[in-house]
Amino acid sequence: MGHRKGIWIPVVTGLIQKDGMVLMGQRPRGNSLAGLWEFPGGKIELGESPEEALERELREELGIFAEVGTLRLATTHSYGEKAVLIMFYDVHFFKGEPKQMHHADLKWVPIDRIGEMEIPQANYRILDRLTRALKTPAQPHI
Amino acid sequence: MGHRKGIWIPVVTGLIQKDGMVLMGQRPRGNSLAGLWEFPGGKIELGESPEEALERELREELGIFAEVGTLRLATTHSYGEKAVLIMFYDVHFFKGEPKQMHHADLKWVPIDRIGEMEIPQANYRILDRLTRALKTPAQPHI
Repeated sequence: MGHRKGIWIPVVTGLIQKDGMVLMGQRPRGNSLAGLWEFPGGKIELGESPEEALERELREELGIFAEVGTLRLATTHSYGEKAVLIMFYDVHFFKGEPKQMHHADLKWVPIDRIGEMEIPQANYRILDRLTRALKTPAQPHI
Repeated sequence: MGHRKGIWIPVVTGLIQKDGMVLMGQRPRGNSLAGLWEFPGGKIELGESPEEALERELREELGIFAEVGTLRLATTHSYGEKAVLIMFYDVHFFKGEPKQMHHADLKWVPIDRIGEMEIPQANYRILDRLTRALKTPAQPHI
């Protein structure tokens, strides 16, 4: 049945929310997709749970101590034999003020304006669902 | 920082629910973890979204046409340099009666009795959260 296996890269991202806005970071030079705006996060390392990976990434990239909330949705994006699997988690609570430690820039973006930012194609394709997730309060965190 | 990359296997599984019970399948002989009980599903193939992969797997394994609902939680489990990432989706609606096309056996299990089944360790570690997810109605599907 032609199972195409590929090399998978699992990524966790935080939908960091405050006052109807969500935090976006601009990918730095030298990275793939430099200049595009993303939800902060990064790759899961071996041995980490998705939540642990996201806590670590948000600490490393933004200097915040985040309480990772509900998993809202996931998407895939493949290019050649590589594919990313991106999972989006609510982040409503965190300690510290997000600092620009990794990104070229940071911005609190009103939910309806995410589509006006230059975002990676993998996110653009699920923009409607992301917007809906951001506007719909999640069930209590399980 | 010693990023351990590893080989990731993303897996989607369905929490197929009816009348307070959830469908479990016993893994067939010759497979890894043969004899253990699992939630039906399988690997995402390149080019598929998680939802598409789960629809295909449930068609191939059970002969049902499932409407994949809300993503409820995700977990990882690593062994050596390999790791699985398992995502659990609600499945409340499907056409057809689940048939034993792949599994050694199928069983509708009351939610509180999942822990009495022989289940893979990766599921056992999140059994409380799985049970909570199954007992808590999800937000509307985004």
